[in-house]
Amino acid sequence: MSILLKNGRVVTADSDAVCDILIEGETIVSIGRNLAAEGAEVIDCTGKLIMPGGIDPHVHLEMPFMGTFSSDTYETGTRAALHGGTTTVIDFILQKQGNSLRSALEEWQGRATGNAVGDYSFHMAVTDFNPSTKEEIKDMIAEGITSFKTFMAYKGALMIDDAQMVGLMQEVKKHGGLVTAHATNGDMIDTLIAQHRAQGKLTPLYHYLSQPEVTEAEASGRFADIANYTGVNAYIVHLTCEGALNQVRRATERNQRVLVETCIQYLVLDARLYEDEVNGAKVVMSPPLREKKDQATLWAGLNQGLVNVVGTDHCPFMWEQKLMGKDDFSKIPNGHPAIEHRMELLFSEGVNKGKITLQKFVEVTSTNAAKIFGMFPRKGTISIGADADLVIFDPAKKHVISADTHHMNCDYSAYEGWEVTGKIDTVLLRGKVAIDAGEAKVAKGYGQFIRRGKTIF
Amino acid sequence: MSILLKNGRVVTADSDAVCDILIEGETIVSIGRNLAAEGAEVIDCTGKLIMPGGIDPHVHLEMPFMGTFSSDTYETGTRAALHGGTTTVIDFILQKQGNSLRSALEEWQGRATGNAVGDYSFHMAVTDFNPSTKEEIKDMIAEGITSFKTFMAYKGALMIDDAQMVGLMQEVKKHGGLVTAHATNGDMIDTLIAQHRAQGKLTPLYHYLSQPEVTEAEASGRFADIANYTGVNAYIVHLTCEGALNQVRRATERNQRVLVETCIQYLVLDARLYEDEVNGAKVVMSPPLREKKDQATLWAGLNQGLVNVVGTDHCPFMWEQKLMGKDDFSKIPNGHPAIEHRMELLFSEGVNKGKITLQKFVEVTSTNAAKIFGMFPRKGTISIGADADLVIFDPAKKHVISADTHHMNCDYSAYEGWEVTGKIDTVLLRGKVAIDAGEAKVAKGYGQFIRRGKTIF
Amino acid sequence: MSILLKNGRVVTADSDAVCDILIEGETIVSIGRNLAAEGAEVIDCTGKLIMPGGIDPHVHLEMPFMGTFSSDTYETGTRAALHGGTTTVIDFILQKQGNSLRSALEEWQGRATGNAVGDYSFHMAVTDFNPSTKEEIKDMIAEGITSFKTFMAYKGALMIDDAQMVGLMQEVKKHGGLVTAHATNGDMIDTLIAQHRAQGKLTPLYHYLSQPEVTEAEASGRFADIANYTGVNAYIVHLTCEGALNQVRRATERNQRVLVETCIQYLVLDARLYEDEVNGAKVVMSPPLREKKDQATLWAGLNQGLVNVVGTDHCPFMWEQKLMGKDDFSKIPNGHPAIEHRMELLFSEGVNKGKITLQKFVEVTSTNAAKIFGMFPRKGTISIGADADLVIFDPAKKHVISADTHHMNCDYSAYEGWEVTGKIDTVLLRGKVAIDAGEAKVAKGYGQFIRRGKTIF
Amino acid sequence: MSILLKNGRVVTADSDAVCDILIEGETIVSIGRNLAAEGAEVIDCTGKLIMPGGIDPHVHLEMPFMGTFSSDTYETGTRAALHGGTTTVIDFILQKQGNSLRSALEEWQGRATGNAVGDYSFHMAVTDFNPSTKEEIKDMIAEGITSFKTFMAYKGALMIDDAQMVGLMQEVKKHGGLVTAHATNGDMIDTLIAQHRAQGKLTPLYHYLSQPEVTEAEASGRFADIANYTGVNAYIVHLTCEGALNQVRRATERNQRVLVETCIQYLVLDARLYEDEVNGAKVVMSPPLREKKDQATLWAGLNQGLVNVVGTDHCPFMWEQKLMGKDDFSKIPNGHPAIEHRMELLFSEGVNKGKITLQKFVEVTSTNAAKIFGMFPRKGTISIGADADLVIFDPAKKHVISADTHHMNCDYSAYEGWEVTGKIDTVLLRGKVAIDAGEAKVAKGYGQFIRRGKTIF
Ligand SMILES: [Zn+2]
Ligand SMILES: [Zn+2]
Ligand SMILES: [Zn+2]
Ligand SMILES: [Zn+2]
Ligand SMILES: [Zn+2]
Ligand SMILES: [Zn+2]
Ligand SMILES: [Zn+2]
Ligand SMILES: [Zn+2]
Repeated sequence: MSILLKNGRVVTADSDAVCDILIEGETIVSIGRNLAAEGAEVIDCTGKLIMPGGIDPHVHLEMPFMGTFSSDTYETGTRAALHGGTTTVIDFILQKQGNSLRSALEEWQGRATGNAVGDYSFHMAVTDFNPSTKEEIKDMIAEGITSFKTFMAYKGALMIDDAQMVGLMQEVKKHGGLVTAHATNGDMIDTLIAQHRAQGKLTPLYHYLSQPEVTEAEASGRFADIANYTGVNAYIVHLTCEGALNQVRRATERNQRVLVETCIQYLVLDARLYEDEVNGAKVVMSPPLREKKDQATLWAGLNQGLVNVVGTDHCPFMWEQKLMGKDDFSKIPNGHPAIEHRMELLFSEGVNKGKITLQKFVEVTSTNAAKIFGMFPRKGTISIGADADLVIFDPAKKHVISADTHHMNCDYSAYEGWEVTGKIDTVLLRGKVAIDAGEAKVAKGYGQFIRRGKTIF
Repeated sequence: MSILLKNGRVVTADSDAVCDILIEGETIVSIGRNLAAEGAEVIDCTGKLIMPGGIDPHVHLEMPFMGTFSSDTYETGTRAALHGGTTTVIDFILQKQGNSLRSALEEWQGRATGNAVGDYSFHMAVTDFNPSTKEEIKDMIAEGITSFKTFMAYKGALMIDDAQMVGLMQEVKKHGGLVTAHATNGDMIDTLIAQHRAQGKLTPLYHYLSQPEVTEAEASGRFADIANYTGVNAYIVHLTCEGALNQVRRATERNQRVLVETCIQYLVLDARLYEDEVNGAKVVMSPPLREKKDQATLWAGLNQGLVNVVGTDHCPFMWEQKLMGKDDFSKIPNGHPAIEHRMELLFSEGVNKGKITLQKFVEVTSTNAAKIFGMFPRKGTISIGADADLVIFDPAKKHVISADTHHMNCDYSAYEGWEVTGKIDTVLLRGKVAIDAGEAKVAKGYGQFIRRGKTIF
Repeated sequence: MSILLKNGRVVTADSDAVCDILIEGETIVSIGRNLAAEGAEVIDCTGKLIMPGGIDPHVHLEMPFMGTFSSDTYETGTRAALHGGTTTVIDFILQKQGNSLRSALEEWQGRATGNAVGDYSFHMAVTDFNPSTKEEIKDMIAEGITSFKTFMAYKGALMIDDAQMVGLMQEVKKHGGLVTAHATNGDMIDTLIAQHRAQGKLTPLYHYLSQPEVTEAEASGRFADIANYTGVNAYIVHLTCEGALNQVRRATERNQRVLVETCIQYLVLDARLYEDEVNGAKVVMSPPLREKKDQATLWAGLNQGLVNVVGTDHCPFMWEQKLMGKDDFSKIPNGHPAIEHRMELLFSEGVNKGKITLQKFVEVTSTNAAKIFGMFPRKGTISIGADADLVIFDPAKKHVISADTHHMNCDYSAYEGWEVTGKIDTVLLRGKVAIDAGEAKVAKGYGQFIRRGKTIF
Repeated sequence: MSILLKNGRVVTADSDAVCDILIEGETIVSIGRNLAAEGAEVIDCTGKLIMPGGIDPHVHLEMPFMGTFSSDTYETGTRAALHGGTTTVIDFILQKQGNSLRSALEEWQGRATGNAVGDYSFHMAVTDFNPSTKEEIKDMIAEGITSFKTFMAYKGALMIDDAQMVGLMQEVKKHGGLVTAHATNGDMIDTLIAQHRAQGKLTPLYHYLSQPEVTEAEASGRFADIANYTGVNAYIVHLTCEGALNQVRRATERNQRVLVETCIQYLVLDARLYEDEVNGAKVVMSPPLREKKDQATLWAGLNQGLVNVVGTDHCPFMWEQKLMGKDDFSKIPNGHPAIEHRMELLFSEGVNKGKITLQKFVEVTSTNAAKIFGMFPRKGTISIGADADLVIFDPAKKHVISADTHHMNCDYSAYEGWEVTGKIDTVLLRGKVAIDAGEAKVAKGYGQFIRRGKTIF
C-alpha cells in the first residue's frame, strides 16, 4: 500500500521545497519532483504545507489523581492529538513512592497498550530514588525509556530532595540518559498555599500568587547547578518565565547547556485570566500562567535557540472535576486541555505573526523533541526511511476553537472562541491517513509504543 | 545530464538516512530508496556520508593589501575550497574610504567574475558611512548583497566609529539586511601595538599581547548594545573568546539574539604558537588565537546554539609576504590559509571526538550560514530543488595535512603534519562533479555569483 | 580663638553621640561631654545634628562655554555651597585640546584664587592625551591634583578616544592617581542629536531621547573594561541609570571595584519634566534625568555600597542663557543649579523617608568623597585635628526651596516650591562660622585650594 | 575611675588622628589633644594604634556536640578573644528541634551567665520553625536577640527546609529583625558524604570534596532568592567562595542587598591543607577551606563593600576530639580555633600587605558588625558615650602564633609557626584594662550580655 503526496510545500527544520512524497508501508521512500507510483493513493497537496508530525513530549493521559483520572484516556487523548497534528506524545509514568519503577511502568502499560490511537512513549518520573530504584535505571533505558522526570515540588507525593537528585543524575549520566525536572520550589509553594488558605484567600488568583516567579526561577537555577555538578544532560519541562530562563542563560556562562521546554499556553495566555473567580479554574495549572513580559522572554528564547521545545503539559479535567476546587483553589485539579491545539496555535500566533520562521516552527514542535528524546531520525523530520508521520496543513484556512468541536474529552476550552489562521487538513501516522477533513481514520490500538534511544542534539 | 548518488548516508541538520539522491541539471530532483534513472551517471556512495556542500561565509580572496594581495585568487581560493568540501564562499568587498560602495563592488566583481571555480557571494564592508553611502544600502540589497560588514578596528583605513555604526544599523534594518562586525576595540589595540613597538617588543607574541581578550569582549558588547538599540539583525564575525561570547550570552537576558561566527582555527589552535619567534608569524591573524579555556567556550557555544557558524577568515599570504614583518609583528600580513581544511578539521576534531553531533556539523558548516545569509533553501541543505552542492565524505579515511598537498596558493600550512580522520571523496557543485579523488573537475569560471536574500533564522 | 559646640547630636559615618565639640583655630581639638573652654564662643546645638561639612566633588563654576560662562563664579558658587552645608567643592579644569594641562590649571587658578568663599580643589580633565600631556600627569599630582577626568562624549571638544584612554590610565596608575569619566557614548549621541535636528525634533524632550540609557550603559561598561585591563583606580561621575550601574555590578564578578558617583537630581527628579516644552530646558543636562526604575536602582546602589558619592554636577545658567536653545535643544547650555540643595534634598528625601541611614547620609555627602579624592582624614569626618568643617542641622525644620531665596546666581530653580524637612542652621569652615541663620559670615577669598593626596578607600 | 590614653593614633572606620582618649567608668567621655584628667590612670600610646574593640559575630562556645562540647567555654573563649582584641562575641543558641526557643535561650544563658570574661550576645538559631516558634520571634527580639540563624544543611538536626524559611523570614521581617544563614545545600552534601564513605574515601580530603563550591553557591543563591521575595534583611555567614559571592553580586542587579560575612581562615588558608591525611583534620570545618581564586574573590569583596564582616566561626576541639574522626572524615568535629587570631591575622595579611586600608580593617572587624547586629553606636566605634572597648595595637611588633602561647583551650593551632606583624598590646573592655602585655586583667563574670537592637546599615 502506498500513498503519494503531490505538490505540497514540504517544510522541515532545514528545508522548504515544493515536491512530492512517496510513502510505502509505514515509511517515506522517496521525496522528489514528479514522482510516480502506480497504484498509490494520491493526495493532492497543492497550496498546502507538509510538515513532520508533531511530537508533544509533555502530556498526562488518564493520570491517576485523587481517586479519579485526568479526563483524556490514551484513546481520546492520542486521537485528539492526531486531530491537532501531533502524531507522537510522551506521557509521564509516575513511580509510587515505596514501589518500583517497574510496577509503575506496568501500570501505565496497562492503560496504554491497545488503547492508543496515536504513537506514544513514556518518561519515567522517579519519585523515590533509593538503592533499588537506582538499579532500575538501566533497565528502563533498556526498555527504551531514556528520560527520567523529577519533581522539585509536591512533597510527600512526587518530590525528591536534592540528595536524591544528585544520586539520580549521577546514575542517569552513567547510562547516557536525560534528567528532566518540574522545576519549582515546592517547599516555598506549600507555605504560600497554606498561608493563603489560612487567610481565606481561596480563589484561583491565589493559585497564581502561591507560585510566584521566584519559586520557578530558584528551582530552575538549582536544577541547573546540580546538573552541572554531575555533568548529566538536563531538560527543564514547562518553563514559563523570565526568571527561570535567565537561570538557563546564566548557566551558559559556565559552558553548560540546559535544554528547555515551554508550553503553548505560556506563549499565548497570561495571568490576567486568574482574575475571573469562576473561569480562572480553567487555567489553573502548575506553574501558572505568567505575565506579558514572560511571553516576550519565551518568544525570544525560541529564536535564541535557548527554548528548544514547545509542549502542552496536557492534563485535562472535566468542569465537574475542576469544581472540586470551587471553594478552594488548592483543590482544583491542575491542568488544562491543549494537546489538540498546540500546533495550530503556535502557527497562528507565531509563524503568522512573524515571531518565528516556519523552520523554527518545525524545530520546536517536532524535530528538537525527536532529537532530544532519542527518536531521531525515525521521528521529527521528513526523510527517507523515517516514519511517514506527516501533517498536511492549510496555512490560510481560518477556524474557531471551541469545546463544541474539539476532540479532547473535556467539556470546556481555555481557547474558546479564538480564531486561528491555519488548519490541519490531513494527518498521516506511520503511512496511514489518520485524520482527514476532521475525521479520525485509524482506530484505538493503532498507536504504538516508541522505544527511545539517546539524545542526539 | 543526471547523476545518481547511490546508497550514501545522507546527513543534514535534521536528517540521517541511507538512500539515493538523483540530480538533474543543477539541482536535486529526488531523494529516495532504490531510485532509478536511465542514463544517469551513477556514483556509488556506500559507506560514505553525503552532506550539504559547505558554506564559508568569511574569506578574503585576492584582497588588496599594502600594494600586494592575499595569495589566493578567486580561482585558486574557490578551487581549494571545493577540495575541502566548501562549495560556496562569501568574500568581503572593502569600500575605500571616500569612495562609493558601487565602485568597490565593481572592483571586486572585476576580480571575481569569470575567475571563480566555486560559487561565491559578497558581503559589503562599509568603511565610510555617510549620506551618500546611506543611499547605496538599498541598491546593494537589490544586487543581492544583504549583509554589511563593519570594522571596529583599523582606524583610518576600515574602521567606522559608533556614530556611523548607529546610522548604518538603522538604514540596514530599514531594508531588512544584516550588520556584521569585526568586533575588536581598534583604539585600544593601536595603543598597545604602539607601546610594544616603542619598547622594542617586536616578535609575534606581541601581536597576541596587543589584542588581549578585553579588546574583543568590549567591542562585542558595544556592537550588541548598539544593535539592540537599533533593533537590527546582528552577527559577530570570527568570535574567539570567552569574554566576547559572554557578552552575547548576557545580551540574551534582554531578549536579544546576536548571531555568532567563530572560525576553525579558534577551535583547534591556541596562543602557545606565538611563542615561536619565527613560525608564530604563520598564525598571526586578528583576532589572534586564544587560550584553551576559550576553545572550551567555543565548543560549548556550538552546542548551546549560541555560536551559529564556523568559518575560516581565510586570508593566506606566502611566507615571503609574511616575512615583511619578520622584524616587526605589526608588519606581518594578517591571516592564514584555512579555506580548504575547515570541514575536515571540524569533522575530525569535533564529530570524531564526540564534541558535536553530525547534525550540528552540518548546521554550522553549511545550513546556518545559508539561512543567516539569505541563501536558504537553495543552499545549505539537501532538498528537492536545492542546488546539488554535495560532499561525499569518507568518515574513516585518515590523511595528513600538508602544504605539499593542499591546493591553496600558500607555501606553508598552519596545520602541517596534522593527521585528520575523515576525508572528502567527491564534491558536487550545482550538479557537476567538481572534485573527485583529489582532482578538480570544473574550471575557472564555473563558479557563480550568488544573489542573496534576507535572513531566515 | 575657639568655638565650643554644645550638646549637639554628632553624627559621622561611624558614630552618633550627643556631645560637645571644641574647635581651636581651624581644627577640632576635642570632642566630649561637658567640655569647657574659657573664652570660647559657645554655640548651643541642643536638638541639632552636627555633621561633617559636605563635599561636592562635581561642580562647574564659571565654566567657559560658548563665549560665556556658567553663571556661578567661584565666589557665588562656593558661597551658595556653604549655605547648603557643602564646605568643599571640587571643580573641573578643562584642558584645551592642543594646550597643556599647566596652562589650563593656570586659567582656573586665575578665576578661583582670591575669589572662593568656601574651600575648593580641582580635578584635571585631560581632553588631549599625548606624549607631552603624559609628562604632566605627575606634575599635576605634585600640585595636589590627583584625579583625572575623561570625557567619552563631546568629540572635537572634550572627548578622548579609547586609544588615549588606555595611555592615560596607565600613566595615572603609575603615579597612584584616579581616573574618572563622563561615561556616555558621545558618538552615538552625536548621531541621535543630528537625526532629531534633521527631523525638526527640537524640544527638550529630544535632548532626553538623544541620550538613551544604552549610551550611558555602554560607555560605563567600556570605561570599566579598560580600567580593569590597566588596573587603574576608576570612578564614574554622574551615573544615572540601571543599565550603567549594572555594568559596575557585573564588573564586581571579575573582582574589580569601580567607584560610582550619582547626583542628587537623578535620585529625586525624573524625565517626565522634559515633556514641558518650555521648562524642560531647566533640567537639560547630560546625562539627562531618567526613569523611576532608575531612581530605585540608585537608592539601592547607595545601600549596596556600590554608589559611593552623591554630588551635583552643578552647572547653572541663567534663564536667558538657557533660552539660547529655545528653538533647538542642542543649543541649551547643559546643567542646572544644585550646589546649594544637595544635602537638604538628600536628607529630606533619603533620611527622612527611611531610604538611607544617617550614617549613609554622611558617608555619601562627605566621607567617601574625602577618602576617594585624597582629603581624608583632614576633610570628611569629625575628628581630632581635622578641619572644623561642620554643619549644624535642624532635622525637623521645614522650608521651601525657591529661586527667590536661594543663593546661587541663577534666576530659576528646578526645585521651585519643593518643601523639604531639615535645614542647615549654621556652617563652620575651618573653624569659622561661615553661615549662620541664612547669612554668610565669611567673605570672598576665605576659601582655600585643597591639595589632595591619594585615594584611601 | 578614669583612664587617659595618651598620644595614640586613633583609627576608626572614618577617622585617623593622633590624640588622647579619656574614659570614665565604662565609657569614653572625651577625645582630644592634650586632654588632662586628674587622677586618671595614664597609658602612653605613643606609636600605637588605638582601634575599636573587635566584634566577632560568629563563635561557638561550649557548643554541645555528640555528647561533648566545643572546647572553649564562655570563660576561656571570651578571654582568648580579649587576648586577640575582640571585646564582644556573638554566639549561636541552637534550638533543639521539638523544643522552644526560650528553653534553648535558657540553656545558653546557663552556660554564659557569670562565666564570660568578655562581652557577648546571642543569635538564635531557629531549627524548627512552627506555629509556636513563630510566636517566640518577637519575644526573642524583646530579649535583645534580633538575629535569627538558619541552617540549610544538617538535615534532621539543624536544617530547616524552604517552607520554614519563607515563614521565618516573613515573621522576622514583620518585627524588624535579621535572618542569617549557613548557606550550603545539606542534601547534596549528605549524598556526597555517603558516597565517599561507601567508597572508603575517608581522609580529610573527602570532607573537602563532599562540599564542592556548588553546594555553597546554590544555597547562597536560594537564600538570597527567598529573602528577596520576603523582603527581609538577610546575612550570609561564613561565605567562602567565588560562586557564592557571585550570587550576592547578581542579586544586586535586582536592587537587593545581601549582607555577607566571611571568616579569617577563608582569606588566609586554602584547601591544600586537606591533603595532609593527619593534620588535615585541624582545618576540617564547614564550609571547608577553598582555593586561591576564592581568596582573591573575598579580598576583592571586602574592598567592593560586598563582604561586610570578617568573623571566625570559632569552634575549637581538642586534638583528641578531632581524632574521633581519624578513620572517617565525617566524624571529625567541625571547626577550628581562631577567636584569638582574627584581628592580628587580618592586620598582618590585609593591612600590612596593602590589601585593605586601616579604615576597612576597623569596618570589617568591628563597625559593620556593630551596625548590622544592632549594637551601634554603643559598640563598634570610638565615640563619646560609647563603651570604652579599645585595642591598643603595636603595628610593627612581630610575633609567632603557636598553640604553646595562645589562650584558647585548644592544644593545636592551625596557624602554628606563622609570623605575624602587629600585636595587641592592651585591650580595654567597658573602661577596664582587660588585657595588658599578654595577661588578662579581668575575671570570669566581667563579660556582660549585650541586648541588641535593629540593624542600622
Ligand atoms: Zn509539572
Ligand atoms: Zn506535567
Ligand atoms: Zn576581521
Ligand atoms: Zn576577515
Ligand atoms: Zn558630565
Ligand atoms: Zn560635570
Ligand atoms: Zn556554619
Ligand atoms: Zn558556625
